[in-house]
Amino acid sequence: TRSGVPEAVFAEGKTTDEIHELLDLALETTGRGLATRIDDDTATTVRDRFVDDRPTAEIDHEARANVLRVRTADFEPPVLEATIGIVTAGTVDAGPAGEAAAVVGEMGATVERYDDVGVAGVHRLFDELDELRGTDVLVVAAGREGALPTVIAGLVDVPVIALPTASGYGYGGEGEAALAGALQSCTALTTVNVDAGFVAGAQAGLIARALDGARK
Amino acid sequence: TRSGVPEAVFAEGKTTDEIHELLDLALETTGRGLATRIDDDTATTVRDRFVDDRPTAEIDHEARANVLRVRTADFEPPVLEATIGIVTAGTVDAGPAGEAAAVVGEMGATVERYDDVGVAGVHRLFDELDELRGTDVLVVAAGREGALPTVIAGLVDVPVIALPTASGYGYGGEGEAALAGALQSCTALTTVNVDAGFVAGAQAGLIARALDGARK
Amino acid sequence: TRSGVPEAVFAEGKTTDEIHELLDLALETTGRGLATRIDDDTATTVRDRFVDDRPTAEIDHEARANVLRVRTADFEPPVLEATIGIVTAGTVDAGPAGEAAAVVGEMGATVERYDDVGVAGVHRLFDELDELRGTDVLVVAAGREGALPTVIAGLVDVPVIALPTASGYGYGGEGEAALAGALQSCTALTTVNVDAGFVAGAQAGLIARALDGARK
Amino acid sequence: TRSGVPEAVFAEGKTTDEIHELLDLALETTGRGLATRIDDDTATTVRDRFVDDRPTAEIDHEARANVLRVRTADFEPPVLEATIGIVTAGTVDAGPAGEAAAVVGEMGATVERYDDVGVAGVHRLFDELDELRGTDVLVVAAGREGALPTVIAGLVDVPVIALPTASGYGYGGEGEAALAGALQSCTALTTVNVDAGFVAGAQAGLIARALDGARK
Amino acid sequence: TRSGVPEAVFAEGKTTDEIHELLDLALETTGRGLATRIDDDTATTVRDRFVDDRPTAEIDHEARANVLRVRTADFEPPVLEATIGIVTAGTVDAGPAGEAAAVVGEMGATVERYDDVGVAGVHRLFDELDELRGTDVLVVAAGREGALPTVIAGLVDVPVIALPTASGYGYGGEGEAALAGALQSCTALTTVNVDAGFVAGAQAGLIARALDGARK
Amino acid sequence: TRSGVPEAVFAEGKTTDEIHELLDLALETTGRGLATRIDDDTATTVRDRFVDDRPTAEIDHEARANVLRVRTADFEPPVLEATIGIVTAGTVDAGPAGEAAAVVGEMGATVERYDDVGVAGVHRLFDELDELRGTDVLVVAAGREGALPTVIAGLVDVPVIALPTASGYGYGGEGEAALAGALQSCTALTTVNVDAGFVAGAQAGLIARALDGARK
Amino acid sequence: TRSGVPEAVFAEGKTTDEIHELLDLALETTGRGLATRIDDDTATTVRDRFVDDRPTAEIDHEARANVLRVRTADFEPPVLEATIGIVTAGTVDAGPAGEAAAVVGEMGATVERYDDVGVAGVHRLFDELDELRGTDVLVVAAGREGALPTVIAGLVDVPVIALPTASGYGYGGEGEAALAGALQSCTALTTVNVDAGFVAGAQAGLIARALDGARK
Amino acid sequence: TRSGVPEAVFAEGKTTDEIHELLDLALETTGRGLATRIDDDTATTVRDRFVDDRPTAEIDHEARANVLRVRTADFEPPVLEATIGIVTAGTVDAGPAGEAAAVVGEMGATVERYDDVGVAGVHRLFDELDELRGTDVLVVAAGREGALPTVIAGLVDVPVIALPTASGYGYGGEGEAALAGALQSCTALTTVNVDAGFVAGAQAGLIARALDGARK
Ligand SMILES: Nc1ncnc2c1ncn2[C@@H]1O[C@H](COP(=O)(O)O)[C@@H](O)[C@H]1O
Ligand SMILES: Nc1ncnc2c1ncn2[C@@H]1O[C@H](COP(=O)(O)O)[C@@H](O)[C@H]1O
Ligand SMILES: Nc1ncnc2c1ncn2[C@@H]1O[C@H](COP(=O)(O)O)[C@@H](O)[C@H]1O
Ligand SMILES: Nc1ncnc2c1ncn2[C@@H]1O[C@H](COP(=O)(O)O)[C@@H](O)[C@H]1O
Ligand SMILES: [Mg+2]
Ligand SMILES: [Mg+2]
Ligand SMILES: [Mg+2]
Ligand SMILES: [Mg+2]
Ligand SMILES: [Mg+2]
Ligand SMILES: [Mg+2]
Ligand SMILES: [Mg+2]
Ligand SMILES: [Mg+2]
Repeated sequence: TRSGVPEAVFAEGKTTDEIHELLDLALETTGRGLATRIDDDTATTVRDRFVDDRPTAEIDHEARANVLRVRTADFEPPVLEATIGIVTAGTVDAGPAGEAAAVVGEMGATVERYDDVGVAGVHRLFDELDELRGTDVLVVAAGREGALPTVIAGLVDVPVIALPTASGYGYGGEGEAALAGALQSCTALTTVNVDAGFVAGAQAGLIARALDGARK
Repeated sequence: TRSGVPEAVFAEGKTTDEIHELLDLALETTGRGLATRIDDDTATTVRDRFVDDRPTAEIDHEARANVLRVRTADFEPPVLEATIGIVTAGTVDAGPAGEAAAVVGEMGATVERYDDVGVAGVHRLFDELDELRGTDVLVVAAGREGALPTVIAGLVDVPVIALPTASGYGYGGEGEAALAGALQSCTALTTVNVDAGFVAGAQAGLIARALDGARK
Repeated sequence: TRSGVPEAVFAEGKTTDEIHELLDLALETTGRGLATRIDDDTATTVRDRFVDDRPTAEIDHEARANVLRVRTADFEPPVLEATIGIVTAGTVDAGPAGEAAAVVGEMGATVERYDDVGVAGVHRLFDELDELRGTDVLVVAAGREGALPTVIAGLVDVPVIALPTASGYGYGGEGEAALAGALQSCTALTTVNVDAGFVAGAQAGLIARALDGARK
Repeated sequence: TRSGVPEAVFAEGKTTDEIHELLDLALETTGRGLATRIDDDTATTVRDRFVDDRPTAEIDHEARANVLRVRTADFEPPVLEATIGIVTAGTVDAGPAGEAAAVVGEMGATVERYDDVGVAGVHRLFDELDELRGTDVLVVAAGREGALPTVIAGLVDVPVIALPTASGYGYGGEGEAALAGALQSCTALTTVNVDAGFVAGAQAGLIARALDGARK
Repeated sequence: TRSGVPEAVFAEGKTTDEIHELLDLALETTGRGLATRIDDDTATTVRDRFVDDRPTAEIDHEARANVLRVRTADFEPPVLEATIGIVTAGTVDAGPAGEAAAVVGEMGATVERYDDVGVAGVHRLFDELDELRGTDVLVVAAGREGALPTVIAGLVDVPVIALPTASGYGYGGEGEAALAGALQSCTALTTVNVDAGFVAGAQAGLIARALDGARK
Repeated sequence: TRSGVPEAVFAEGKTTDEIHELLDLALETTGRGLATRIDDDTATTVRDRFVDDRPTAEIDHEARANVLRVRTADFEPPVLEATIGIVTAGTVDAGPAGEAAAVVGEMGATVERYDDVGVAGVHRLFDELDELRGTDVLVVAAGREGALPTVIAGLVDVPVIALPTASGYGYGGEGEAALAGALQSCTALTTVNVDAGFVAGAQAGLIARALDGARK
Repeated sequence: TRSGVPEAVFAEGKTTDEIHELLDLALETTGRGLATRIDDDTATTVRDRFVDDRPTAEIDHEARANVLRVRTADFEPPVLEATIGIVTAGTVDAGPAGEAAAVVGEMGATVERYDDVGVAGVHRLFDELDELRGTDVLVVAAGREGALPTVIAGLVDVPVIALPTASGYGYGGEGEAALAGALQSCTALTTVNVDAGFVAGAQAGLIARALDGARK
Repeated sequence: TRSGVPEAVFAEGKTTDEIHELLDLALETTGRGLATRIDDDTATTVRDRFVDDRPTAEIDHEARANVLRVRTADFEPPVLEATIGIVTAGTVDAGPAGEAAAVVGEMGATVERYDDVGVAGVHRLFDELDELRGTDVLVVAAGREGALPTVIAGLVDVPVIALPTASGYGYGGEGEAALAGALQSCTALTTVNVDAGFVAGAQAGLIARALDGARK
């Protein structure tokens, strides 16, 4: 794995044993590990094993984001001089946004959250505009028609990463509408796949790392 | 055809002879006719025939909108007490928006145009907000990511009809992104198919007709 | 939210706590709230909480339409001088049609239902034709091939909003056939997404509001 | 090839030489041949060659249907005691319908045409109903939303074969909406591919052949 | 419903009560009724109700085909002088083929079954060829790549109706490959939607009815 | 490039200059070069340049397959002890099949062609069966429903590579039906992309090379 | 079935009885049988029946690959002088890769496994390069973006068969991205459908059989 | 427009007049302008007009990238202390890569090009690795299977922006395979739409601007 991006185990399609082993290996070799897209039951089982096997390890389960994090007691987390804004259009975007935040946090950047500023009521967005402009990178999570990343990217000079989410139904309702909206955006932004909070966070973290290097 | 909606000949896939004949029949029976999606060469040929055959008829070719309109000299156009706002995000949306405007005009409603108010620079939109709120129905034409109908529908109480346009490229670039955006909109609006200016205009016109009836 | 359209909580992908809180907030601020696409168990739990917390509130669960409605005791519902016809092709369309009816009702318009008039037996439709022509707007719910909105729009002058439903199987069976049919209709109608009863109802309600204004 | 179905050369993607040779071989061995989906220029060239090489052959080019037919002077066409109705929704359906008619005609059945009875004005259809009920099989060509086969199949007891055509634009506009409509029809009918007039005609012809056998 | 095609209740998306009522109404008015796509539990419940309410009715549940059939004691089933061959490529095609057989049977034609003659071992098919050629219509059910209808239609002069089934996985595995194969077939056949056994059977039955009329 | 597979320039999207230069470089470094998917005009221009610049080079343009081949005068082509059968369903498959044959030939294996053995008349196929069984690998090109690779793979023990071709129209007509048929085949075969004759030939050539190594 | 490829029962969509019967028949007639895509419960039930009915049979259930294998006590497995390399990009690819390995093993070739050599850390791949080059055929299983088959095929001269797997999420996440990557590969390889381990293994086995014949 | 990103006119779907006017306005107000996706003829006409109207303006037409650039004589381009690497897999990727380079250049960052390092011969890539690691951001243009962005992102710590290109044919050949590969990448990268060189360049430029700010 690339330096700075924490070792992350993609939990879907893996057995509990495999997830546990891979996290354990990450802990052993890098001092920490993340499991992403892990359901509650599996997370509880894996956490319990760590509590038994490695009583000094720090374990953290963020259920909303389906992320499980383990760290050795003496792991020293990196600290980057950079701020990543993570924006959600609505409550249903909280999962992927939380995954992004977890990765950014692990990489050492400061996370600022701006929640529920969806375009249905564009006024809330304008209240936050100065703050949004003060961040270094923006990750903007939105489902349905996914207009929010475009609206924000038209108002700020900060690099924007769209994070389309799978909230919707009918035609385009598995996040394709929001993804297509990001890819067709008439402003300049990049995107990740539907619900790919990990990827959005890691890319934001790499930019933060570069800025940190330039600032120090 | 339904009363109020002018007889319209969909020109694509028809021969020049057929278009001419169908328009002529419409003229004969209803005093006027529209051809939509008619290319420049065909429009010129058909116009020339009318100039020869029916020297008193009024003929109008709106090239930008690919619409040809014929009326008998004594046709009395309807007048409706209602205003339809037709909004475009960018210059490329002018074609379908013009088609919508032509139909609305034929049905007798007042047309107000609001051009190039795309979300990349959302300020221009706010300048027009009071005017937009003063219309009876809004037809909002936008391609690419199609965020504009959603942004507007979040700001006004007027019924909004989205008119997705086929401006774009790559994934979703034939108007599917804009269409999906309209269908997934987190506000309440209805939509027509990609580039279906005629349909958007006719529905707006039917609402105008109902309002006119209520007002008189 | 736009004036007239009641605050609605899209229940899918939200926790029971979130739905309850958001409804409660809507109740507090606007005197009422709707939850849409809410399953029976969640609806029961949320209702029970309201029964405990706000004993004077009126609570109504329309299971068929997956809608939960709460109102404060002193909420005064709007009354609009306008009638919306809601038509279904078959029994399976009752869910989305009920969702549309709930929104229209909340917005204050009169709802007329015309059920099971599908095109397989087109005679039933002709019996209702005069009544259909007497409404102000028609919402027509149909799944499978979705021919009904087109057939009706060819027979009336009232604005028609198609509401495609996800009843079917095989190719196009998730409502895409019915949606495509609405978008390609050779008559003039607008559409909403598959099963988007709320959106169809809200747009119908906005037109009703405009008519009410014109009539008064 | 199956007995009864005339040898047909699918002209698209073949050189003029190949089409000519294949038709010539069909003429030689079966007394006749059809080329389908043949453009005007190629048809003229091939016809001219036959005029030169086989002066006694009967050659017929139906430009509207993109069909070229050759027969030896002494070919005795079959005659079947059966009638196939071929219905079109609009003028743009004339091409595929003509292709179907050509094949049915070659197979020896009587062809009855019912043109422009589209659902936008359903009255015209009712005028023809008794005649439609008197045919043995109905081939119903319709593009756009493709409602016509369903509406007809709900009104007659004759086997209906839907022939979706590629007239339309935007989402589903290459005939997919009409095809999906046929496949999802809430009545019982079978379908062929978009614009597959030859296939619809051949299947209708095979049923005619069976009926002819039963009648004689 | 059309004469000859028995009243059929499409059970998916209906409640047990609704299915029971609709069947009961069919029984009352036409002497019989079919429910299609009915799962085992619902079928058992509905059957039990009929056993209680209408002790003299004949009830038949064909679990493999998900069909439930009810008849009054004195219903006189039609008898048609015609034979429909129903062919399956493999065991997984038994469900839709059984649905087709049930309808054909109800309509009064003789059903001949030819099972497991898939193209992986084309020899079995050749053994049945004379018998297949002796039927009046062939319904050919096949999933996966769906080659069987094409191979058979190339060998017989009988009208062939393809019945694509949803057996497969990966790209095209929900029956789209088999459906596309039927629509693109280089022989002449018509098709129904994926798993639409009812429709295939009803169309075959209508042809049988026509043949019966011609024969008598 | 891999040893054995000749350097091939994919001509689409390249300028004439670039194609010429890349072929020249291939000639210089490996003694030969292929350009694939090259249109007639470009091929003629490039050939003319080689005739001028490298008068001793052998140049060969196979127009049907859109392949241009150049070799230095003293290039010694490889010879492999292996035979590849290349089968086509119809004349329209000749292009991709020819591309495959060109590559196989360049790699040194013997090519056997079996043309026009499509499943519409399965008898022709049976006549060739012994010969087909005697080859080492079979490349089977077929468009439309693409049943041929499956039918052949059910009859031989030789590895079969499907080569779907883009001959067809309507749903699945750009080769997707044939590709889906290959991927869903109920026999065991591998496939390449639509019209990817080069790839099918190169894979067949690599197997030939392995067999040649084993045989010598 | 083709000689060499063991009789395999595709378990999905079959009842336990049918699977048991078909395996039993295979055992009876060929001395062995495989069931693929069989879930754990069904496998256990079928195994138990064989333990009862045929106490001397060898039964083997590979849960990870969803494969159940039965052999008579005296079955003499074939032995081929050829080696198939089976490569996985990550742990999630183990299922389909195991299915491929089971078939290859049954056909008598030697299987070499190369696991977790995904492109995220391309170094591991380079360590194995000499070994990979020493195999006769490579089956390369990869999900997500599916880059691995292309990267390997660019480095070896052995025929490569891509085995795309359905590990991923969002756009292209059901294996379509990996399948598209295999079909578009800028190197020369063939592919099977998503998760089609059986097919990849059988094709590899047929090549091994050919090589074995050439070697002996 | 956002500060730093130069005013760019998307030329597709605009008339020559409109492009000229919009560029002229940009020149007037910001001292420069870009037209992207402009074909050669239009570019020449527009250039000629500028030569006439504004003789002192600097005009530059990069035909390969379909970009036309105009600057006033006294425009002072920005200079950023940051380096963007632009990588192509093959010659066909030169167009979109050139578009990206043009934007990055206008924004003032240093551009480093790394051409033809596609994965078919992965060795060339390794030679450039140290240089690639020394850039601040990498834009990686690749078509076909689009493996290159993933392979590179697995080897460097620099933020990678994938730029999928529409080079290919058959399934996924309009750039969807490469886009899907970027979205499913098992490394962490962001992507833009197919051929969206402008967007990739602008995002890279915004990151460069941020780094420049941090460095100064
Ligand atoms: N939620 C996620 N989305 C996308 N990529 C992920 C995610 N979690 C982990 N990864 C990436 O996937 C790789 C692990 O894949 P695996 O070997 O299947 O666990 C890691 O190196 C990460 O780069
Ligand atoms: N541009 C258009 N888009 C959609 N529908 C149209 C258009 N122009 C005309 N129509 C409708 O199509 C019908 C005419 O179709 P046709 O008979 O094919 O000319 C008219 O009655 C109109 O309702
Ligand atoms: N399995 C089936 N597939 C397709 N159509 C069916 C099926 N079963 C019944 N039908 C048709 O659907 C109609 C009933 O639809 P519904 O009113 O939703 O029960 C009947 O008139 C039949 O023509
Ligand atoms: N017709 C073709 N189809 C697929 N791949 C091809 C074709 N022709 C050449 N190639 C491959 O594409 C590579 C060259 O791509 P390029 O550098 O774009 O010319 C060659 O190494 C071949 O492996
Ligand atoms: Mg939202
Ligand atoms: Mg725009
Ligand atoms: Mg219905
Ligand atoms: Mg029509
Ligand atoms: Mg099969
Ligand atoms: Mg063929
Ligand atoms: Mg992987
Ligand atoms: Mg490449």
